[in-house]
Amino acid sequence: MAQNICMKKSASSLALGPGGLDISQSFFKPIHGASPPPPTNRNTKISVIGVGNVGMAIAQTILTQDLADEIALVDVNADKLRGEMLDLQHAAAFLPRTTISASVDPTITFGSDLVIVTAGARQLPGESRLNLLQRNVGLFSKIIPPLAAGSPEAVMLVVSNPVDVLTYVAWKLSGFPANRVIGSGTNLDSSRFRFLIADHLDVNAHDVQAYIMGEHGDSSVALWSSISVGGVPILSFLDRQEIAYEKQTLEKIHKEVVQGAYEVIGLKGYTSWAIGYSVANLARSILRDQRKVHLVSVLAKGLYGIDEGEVFLSLPAQLGRSGVLGVTSLHLSEEESQQLQKSAKTILEVQSQLGI
Amino acid sequence: MAQNICMKKSASSLALGPGGLDISQSFFKPIHGASPPPPTNRNTKISVIGVGNVGMAIAQTILTQDLADEIALVDVNADKLRGEMLDLQHAAAFLPRTTISASVDPTITFGSDLVIVTAGARQLPGESRLNLLQRNVGLFSKIIPPLAAGSPEAVMLVVSNPVDVLTYVAWKLSGFPANRVIGSGTNLDSSRFRFLIADHLDVNAHDVQAYIMGEHGDSSVALWSSISVGGVPILSFLDRQEIAYEKQTLEKIHKEVVQGAYEVIGLKGYTSWAIGYSVANLARSILRDQRKVHLVSVLAKGLYGIDEGEVFLSLPAQLGRSGVLGVTSLHLSEEESQQLQKSAKTILEVQSQLGI
Amino acid sequence: MAQNICMKKSASSLALGPGGLDISQSFFKPIHGASPPPPTNRNTKISVIGVGNVGMAIAQTILTQDLADEIALVDVNADKLRGEMLDLQHAAAFLPRTTISASVDPTITFGSDLVIVTAGARQLPGESRLNLLQRNVGLFSKIIPPLAAGSPEAVMLVVSNPVDVLTYVAWKLSGFPANRVIGSGTNLDSSRFRFLIADHLDVNAHDVQAYIMGEHGDSSVALWSSISVGGVPILSFLDRQEIAYEKQTLEKIHKEVVQGAYEVIGLKGYTSWAIGYSVANLARSILRDQRKVHLVSVLAKGLYGIDEGEVFLSLPAQLGRSGVLGVTSLHLSEEESQQLQKSAKTILEVQSQLGI
Amino acid sequence: MAQNICMKKSASSLALGPGGLDISQSFFKPIHGASPPPPTNRNTKISVIGVGNVGMAIAQTILTQDLADEIALVDVNADKLRGEMLDLQHAAAFLPRTTISASVDPTITFGSDLVIVTAGARQLPGESRLNLLQRNVGLFSKIIPPLAAGSPEAVMLVVSNPVDVLTYVAWKLSGFPANRVIGSGTNLDSSRFRFLIADHLDVNAHDVQAYIMGEHGDSSVALWSSISVGGVPILSFLDRQEIAYEKQTLEKIHKEVVQGAYEVIGLKGYTSWAIGYSVANLARSILRDQRKVHLVSVLAKGLYGIDEGEVFLSLPAQLGRSGVLGVTSLHLSEEESQQLQKSAKTILEVQSQLGI
Repeated sequence: MAQNICMKKSASSLALGPGGLDISQSFFKPIHGASPPPPTNRNTKISVIGVGNVGMAIAQTILTQDLADEIALVDVNADKLRGEMLDLQHAAAFLPRTTISASVDPTITFGSDLVIVTAGARQLPGESRLNLLQRNVGLFSKIIPPLAAGSPEAVMLVVSNPVDVLTYVAWKLSGFPANRVIGSGTNLDSSRFRFLIADHLDVNAHDVQAYIMGEHGDSSVALWSSISVGGVPILSFLDRQEIAYEKQTLEKIHKEVVQGAYEVIGLKGYTSWAIGYSVANLARSILRDQRKVHLVSVLAKGLYGIDEGEVFLSLPAQLGRSGVLGVTSLHLSEEESQQLQKSAKTILEVQSQLGI
Repeated sequence: MAQNICMKKSASSLALGPGGLDISQSFFKPIHGASPPPPTNRNTKISVIGVGNVGMAIAQTILTQDLADEIALVDVNADKLRGEMLDLQHAAAFLPRTTISASVDPTITFGSDLVIVTAGARQLPGESRLNLLQRNVGLFSKIIPPLAAGSPEAVMLVVSNPVDVLTYVAWKLSGFPANRVIGSGTNLDSSRFRFLIADHLDVNAHDVQAYIMGEHGDSSVALWSSISVGGVPILSFLDRQEIAYEKQTLEKIHKEVVQGAYEVIGLKGYTSWAIGYSVANLARSILRDQRKVHLVSVLAKGLYGIDEGEVFLSLPAQLGRSGVLGVTSLHLSEEESQQLQKSAKTILEVQSQLGI
Repeated sequence: MAQNICMKKSASSLALGPGGLDISQSFFKPIHGASPPPPTNRNTKISVIGVGNVGMAIAQTILTQDLADEIALVDVNADKLRGEMLDLQHAAAFLPRTTISASVDPTITFGSDLVIVTAGARQLPGESRLNLLQRNVGLFSKIIPPLAAGSPEAVMLVVSNPVDVLTYVAWKLSGFPANRVIGSGTNLDSSRFRFLIADHLDVNAHDVQAYIMGEHGDSSVALWSSISVGGVPILSFLDRQEIAYEKQTLEKIHKEVVQGAYEVIGLKGYTSWAIGYSVANLARSILRDQRKVHLVSVLAKGLYGIDEGEVFLSLPAQLGRSGVLGVTSLHLSEEESQQLQKSAKTILEVQSQLGI
Repeated sequence: MAQNICMKKSASSLALGPGGLDISQSFFKPIHGASPPPPTNRNTKISVIGVGNVGMAIAQTILTQDLADEIALVDVNADKLRGEMLDLQHAAAFLPRTTISASVDPTITFGSDLVIVTAGARQLPGESRLNLLQRNVGLFSKIIPPLAAGSPEAVMLVVSNPVDVLTYVAWKLSGFPANRVIGSGTNLDSSRFRFLIADHLDVNAHDVQAYIMGEHGDSSVALWSSISVGGVPILSFLDRQEIAYEKQTLEKIHKEVVQGAYEVIGLKGYTSWAIGYSVANLARSILRDQRKVHLVSVLAKGLYGIDEGEVFLSLPAQLGRSGVLGVTSLHLSEEESQQLQKSAKTILEVQSQLGI
């Protein structure tokens, strides 16, 4: 049974009846001739579906960075949900005022500007990846339609893994136009790539341009030909300096990026902080209409030579208030281009087994 | 064996020998006549001891709020430690540049401006509180002296529980002057208090002045006589409006504050976000010399009528670059004053059993 | 003739015809199935009317603090206007993306969430204050109606002086409900008051509660009975400490506040920075629905014993997305209450001469 | 005569003798065993020399962005100086606590981490550029030596024009190593360049890499070959898309950048906001050790083929806590390289006439 576990007025003890302390009516006096607010509510509302480590790192980073006026949390675990909500609310004195609500009932998300989906089943011992995926598709079938119906103008941002296929699934189930369904994709992989390069050269990661495209996972494509540091294209720098390098060295770095998530999971049990910052970064670009280019999972049909089917994978997409505004044309080497095609095929094959 | 698990140059694969890619020397050229940096390193360095849920919420909030140039993490669990460090580092592209390092060896903290101690033993099944405390005293005996020796000019901020006694223990073990050893105390309790009142009246918590003093725990003291909202003292407002209230109602609210942490722990298993924001808030006041008043655990001897012994408990203390700058004189009712005395005695009794 | 001097696409040389460089169409490719943005535009838009020193300090502070997605500037001086717009736009690489536009034509403000009016005539040599005011009323008659018509759901914030009377005039001319017309009032006077006290005690001004009410000007009322520092009410602190003080001393401080603006004008020719921060602070409370209490000029009829007429003066008002949410009931001493009444009368007398 | 017009304790009326209100001693009580702060003062202090439109836009932006704990202002005009200081101080309630001081005496700057020089003589009617420069050299001879002596570990950032020659002059007069004397150079020109391109393509200026090198002025060099947008190199994009363009079109855009400052000066009388943001951006990179690459004026001897003399001009320099950390090797076309050489010669010729 759906249960709205907590609203803003959670401090019920303050409002008890006889002997209670209900002074909220008398504390502020209205001014003469005041009228109710105009019908257009312009508060920025973000909903986070799933309050596991990823969902909460996202919600808390969004809260710290003051990106929303209202944050709604949804999960099936009512206790965990209420605990997380209270833990954020208790910090009110240290933060700008933000309304934080939580419920097992998705109606709490209605009217969101951005819906971030982190919910997902966990792999059972011995379970195949396909079986896990099918259980997640089942989960999405239940949660996506009411979320989409309740926030028909929202952008939907999918973080659950495997992110590319599940973004496709969310798109299908939502009925949203493709520009308003986005997967977090390789936005974080690209940040890991930039960190590794920046750390080695002792530069600021913001001065490193480096992209990981395609599937968020083993078949992702590192665009070596596009890397630049402080405006200096790395490969031509190496050529000019006559510094020899072998392809394996480059591939090793890419592998380190791909392994990044696995390594963190192996060490601490899950990833949280980096994906939290990554998604908050996307949320800012979207909600504040920043028109920045991010590597995120978008409907790739007809772009970068991917012609065969409706596949979502990470391309350099410009994001703004209405979601995906367009995709830039990075120059890919022949090999990079083939890897991207292969990445697309890998995802399509999985999709074909889902029966959606 | 101490093991420095990770330094900034973690991207070792980039620097491999033959066939490797060590371009860091040739990428930047020095300018003519450049000289090394002056001896006075003015980077702001914060160390966090213990990377459990509390320690990491603190470290990540400090990182998001851009309070430090350098963050050092220390824990005994090398895997967890490296996992947390990598997870923060991977977000480099989304944050201002901050050096994040981690080691099981406390020498990594040397030269800190602020050392935040969150380490603590967990209660074993059936273990008495006193036994737990004694194990924590044993832990502090090991970790505090090298931390103090390595950062002799730092401020030390204790978060581990029971915070008041352990702040006293850290003070004794560090050899620091009392103004540079502070416990997080009731800074968070006061925020919870302010949230409950703000939420009921639908005001911004920043407009609510409300203090919880004394022990961080069951014997804490709510200063009803000092509460004001938007400049309006609540008790005299109720009198003027002839709104009747009973003492039990007020006590109920105080109880809700005290229960706040227990409730969150009961629901999600631990507290993290609010204490993270609370301690980051203290870190800002200290490191940016904000001279703000916070309810934190300080050496109370000779203040508010507490004359008997060396006891730390939360008083309204002004914090700045050199720690505690002074304590304000809030007016306490007779009853509040007696509760505070009792709070002091409770803590002193526990301390007397420690043999320090 | 109205002239829209500059739109976002100001870089006209990039788009020249033959031999030109119009690549904006081909640079981004749309994704498949993209649909136009939903009709509800939720961008936050602020308009600033008048780009003198005050208007520009406000606009630039709002820009630095990232409070708006869109800033529109209006003035009668087309050259100055374009110069200021370009000067802000040139900083694009150092700021989050914000659309900055400017025009002598007020249609550029249409759809604003907040309209800030700083325009005003300057006192001519030998001109009486009343004559100056009447010229400003004439100016408002021209500019307020189209601004109100073009942004019918906006909050209007008046900064032009004499602010209380002109806020009343703007209210009358706009046809807006009273909660959506606000004068900057004594928000800045109160900050000056807090600075003087904080500076003397070497505390953070955020820990000082101190209010200046009533007219923004010579008849303003300093609420000595409500001042507190770090939660300690000052007057009762002085009593308890048996520190003698004379009323003249307090009045001297109040006088220093009132003289503050005159002193700055005498020294540098105008005020700008502090009023810029003050108004940006109000803009945040309103647009981010902060529900904070500010001393701003609101319709005071029926409040604080002001019963006679429709007068705007500064009261402690809670501000949010729909403007004034309510007014708190600060306790005034008998003398303070009488001063406030007198302040109201002073303003009403001026208003009666305007014939509105 | 040097006159320290104002210290932090400016609120003198609060501290008057008999009948005064000197409660600052009794308000806070010290805790037991408190010791004075450690000798190493780690407050971040920035001094701004010259409080004209440029200097004040810099100081105010630094204040808004919370980059310093202490800001010291120096000018010869004591009234203007005190007016500007008060105007900033009055905003204390809206900002984090920052100590703002001002004096005609440069001793107020002692112990700065960063000294920003904006002072400069104004061109007299009919005065030659060389004559103006010589007067500025005279001015620098007076102000630089005491500034350098009082803050021997500071980084010195020169903004006064002609910036390249005056940075050289400041270097000579300061006796500082070259890495700690930097001119604001073409950092702002590069931002203007990025804005023009970003505005045309409707992208975020942060996604545009575009550099203006060499002299800050008419002989500056636009690096067309290095421009990229969202990782896409523009010139090769045009080639691939077979979009024809003529060199004049590109030069036209460059000319628009060069004219940018003149245009703003022509329209509003001076530039202020953009240079304020530009210099605050440099201040952050330096003081927070961001290791970012900026186009700033540095000692170019031996770099980019500039071998002849000690000339400062803008190169892509990595900035950090000790000033210039190194210079990157952007690839210049033959033509761009020749333009840069010519730019160097132009500056050297001017320098040779100065007799320093």
